[in-house]
Amino acid sequence: MSGIEKFDAVDLIKAKRDAGELSTDEIRWLVDAYVRGVVADEQMSAMTMAILIRGMNRRETNDLTAAMVASGERLDFSGLSWPTADKHSTGGVGDKITLPLAPLVASFGVAVPQLSGRGLGHTGGTLDKFESIPGWRANLTNAEMHAQLEKVGAVVCAAGTGLAPADRKLYALRDTTGTVEAIPLIASSIMSKKLAEGTGVLVLDVKFGNGAFMSTLERARELAEVLVGIGTDSGVKTRAVLSNMNTPLGLAIGNANEVRESVEVLAGGGPSDVVDLTVTLAEHMLELAGVTGVDVRANLSNGKAMDVWRAMVSAQGGDPDGALPVASETHVVTADRDGVITHMDALPFGIGAWRMGAGRARKEDLVVHAAGIDLHVKPGDRVKAGDPVFTLSANDSARFERALEAVDGAWGIGDTVVDHGPLIAGIIGA
Amino acid sequence: MSGIEKFDAVDLIKAKRDAGELSTDEIRWLVDAYVRGVVADEQMSAMTMAILIRGMNRRETNDLTAAMVASGERLDFSGLSWPTADKHSTGGVGDKITLPLAPLVASFGVAVPQLSGRGLGHTGGTLDKFESIPGWRANLTNAEMHAQLEKVGAVVCAAGTGLAPADRKLYALRDTTGTVEAIPLIASSIMSKKLAEGTGVLVLDVKFGNGAFMSTLERARELAEVLVGIGTDSGVKTRAVLSNMNTPLGLAIGNANEVRESVEVLAGGGPSDVVDLTVTLAEHMLELAGVTGVDVRANLSNGKAMDVWRAMVSAQGGDPDGALPVASETHVVTADRDGVITHMDALPFGIGAWRMGAGRARKEDLVVHAAGIDLHVKPGDRVKAGDPVFTLSANDSARFERALEAVDGAWGIGDTVVDHGPLIAGIIGA
Repeated sequence: MSGIEKFDAVDLIKAKRDAGELSTDEIRWLVDAYVRGVVADEQMSAMTMAILIRGMNRRETNDLTAAMVASGERLDFSGLSWPTADKHSTGGVGDKITLPLAPLVASFGVAVPQLSGRGLGHTGGTLDKFESIPGWRANLTNAEMHAQLEKVGAVVCAAGTGLAPADRKLYALRDTTGTVEAIPLIASSIMSKKLAEGTGVLVLDVKFGNGAFMSTLERARELAEVLVGIGTDSGVKTRAVLSNMNTPLGLAIGNANEVRESVEVLAGGGPSDVVDLTVTLAEHMLELAGVTGVDVRANLSNGKAMDVWRAMVSAQGGDPDGALPVASETHVVTADRDGVITHMDALPFGIGAWRMGAGRARKEDLVVHAAGIDLHVKPGDRVKAGDPVFTLSANDSARFERALEAVDGAWGIGDTVVDHGPLIAGIIGA
Repeated sequence: MSGIEKFDAVDLIKAKRDAGELSTDEIRWLVDAYVRGVVADEQMSAMTMAILIRGMNRRETNDLTAAMVASGERLDFSGLSWPTADKHSTGGVGDKITLPLAPLVASFGVAVPQLSGRGLGHTGGTLDKFESIPGWRANLTNAEMHAQLEKVGAVVCAAGTGLAPADRKLYALRDTTGTVEAIPLIASSIMSKKLAEGTGVLVLDVKFGNGAFMSTLERARELAEVLVGIGTDSGVKTRAVLSNMNTPLGLAIGNANEVRESVEVLAGGGPSDVVDLTVTLAEHMLELAGVTGVDVRANLSNGKAMDVWRAMVSAQGGDPDGALPVASETHVVTADRDGVITHMDALPFGIGAWRMGAGRARKEDLVVHAAGIDLHVKPGDRVKAGDPVFTLSANDSARFERALEAVDGAWGIGDTVVDHGPLIAGIIGA
């Protein structure tokens, strides 16, 4: 640390440790100095622990987000002839919403630039799902992305390493130091990437429940309020939908099977929860982008959203009519009695699909696109003894045992359905 | 991190972060894995921040201390024909107490094995003071230390790197990550070294006031209680003296001048506060070691403590009659009016002496043994305009300006003396 540094890391750590407030200048320096290596990992981890326990106010959280945005490049879609709207989900089990949503919104003249990631752990990644489609490629240059948006109105591609590099470095640190679960840090991590992407408006799908990052509605609401605050204070119209993630979304959990289900939705069918959440999020994105008085649901039935889907898949080298991979081994779990499905907990089913090969434990792992779980019934559905409840699919039958262990006790047949409340629990933001 | 590790660092960090209690096994693993490099610095700094904010109970603090002791070698003085007593001071300005104390206690038949450190910042180090004595050497082998204790009854030498290496690594980390000020960490750091030294009984001089590590009596009492708890629970008779460090101890602040003052005390003279604190600490050490009913103060006047002093200095190559270094430059500050010295704040006088060259800013700095500050009066003393108040000594007159800046406003002449209370504010322990 040389004399030309504006602040001393230890002073800032002590200030936050003692529940003090960090100034805009201090936060800007901290993030910049961390990227430069002047603030060491062990100093930043002490700081993040202090932030986790002591918190950050709205101004500090905004400043942290802005400092992370400033650490990298910023995309600019202002040259497009379309308005833009982006969506971010905090992640869930069976969450394929981006697949029908992006083409649906684009079908109303609002472009959707969706920079996504790959999955880690029990929640799937949007890119993994798309990569089930033969020929589809995730990596586009900024120019390719821009051209596709102008032509098709929707793009889903890999976020480049140039966006918010401070967030990337900080997230890796938080992951190994027990400081992931801090709302100011979660919120600035999410929003720094979204703000760097330069979207016009933003709708956040903040999930709560056993399969979500935030297990309670209260924590999800708290996070949503901070996220919306950051977006609003940054001049981006932002709204958050609080959605229920106690039960997997739809019937498909995996990759290829989630693409299949998404195509069903785009064809006017599909499970009602997937359709409802897609339509709700699309309505908010369109409204924030200035498109009102339209029948959003209609474009799922009339083929307009499907047309955009086919164009966006093709534009990235994918064959929209190509055969999706199918697993070589399946195992069907059947009902051992008559009754009603009482519950199907999202987290264990997510873990089960992950253990089948649908997800990865480490970043460098490969995903088995054909692997996953297909539900045949959902909570509230009536079954008779012998009816299929769900099917496990994998390329290796040795994986069934551990997946079955994961879902053991995570579902049941009885008389009364566990009430997890409605799919949409609230809307945050103007 | 391999599968054979007993715990996962992130789990333990999260437990403490959420105000949980760590088990004996978990703490033992944590310290051991940290020394082995399995727990990374950034993980340990997150953990220490969590400990600082969430605290540790007595059992956890004992376990942490034991784990640090277990990380290195343990000395054993049970083969000596003498009982042993050790003393530790949390550090202060003008704190030369070890110099008269060790020979005084030894003069009553209780051996004092004093492993000391060098100073950093405004508090001086005992080894730095001894190294003012021509020829004296700090580094002894364990065998030399043992032999000197058996022969002379007192040794002051450098603590080897083999004692509590976990503490050394952890302390360096805490220093750069804003986690020094955590009582469980401070206490386990102090006690791990003292327990590894294998003393029979231990008296702690826990200082409070502006020149002390703990600025308030309450914090000092809190630390003292934890220290005594650890010692007692480890089977070492431990007592703490809460002593006042608002005003420098004695008249000399530096190194060579502090040796001179210590020799005055050993010759039956010296400033009353130095004598009183030396005698108090000696009485407690002797009492815990089973020596009661003796006139401690007498051995300062009858030459017995001085005899031990001469023997212990000689045993380590020092010349007890050798000329101590004298600075080439001096600057006398005089009273600008008649009145009473109202206060002399320890911290700024410590910083002033440090800036004269008596202390070091970085570990690798050399100390100027002749440099320092000599007070001619103390708070409560009456002065006339023109009377000398204190003298700065250095080998480079360019140092005077910044030292004078340090003490500016740190003392005054007026009508009323600032009341900092008595020298000894309490005793903790049985």
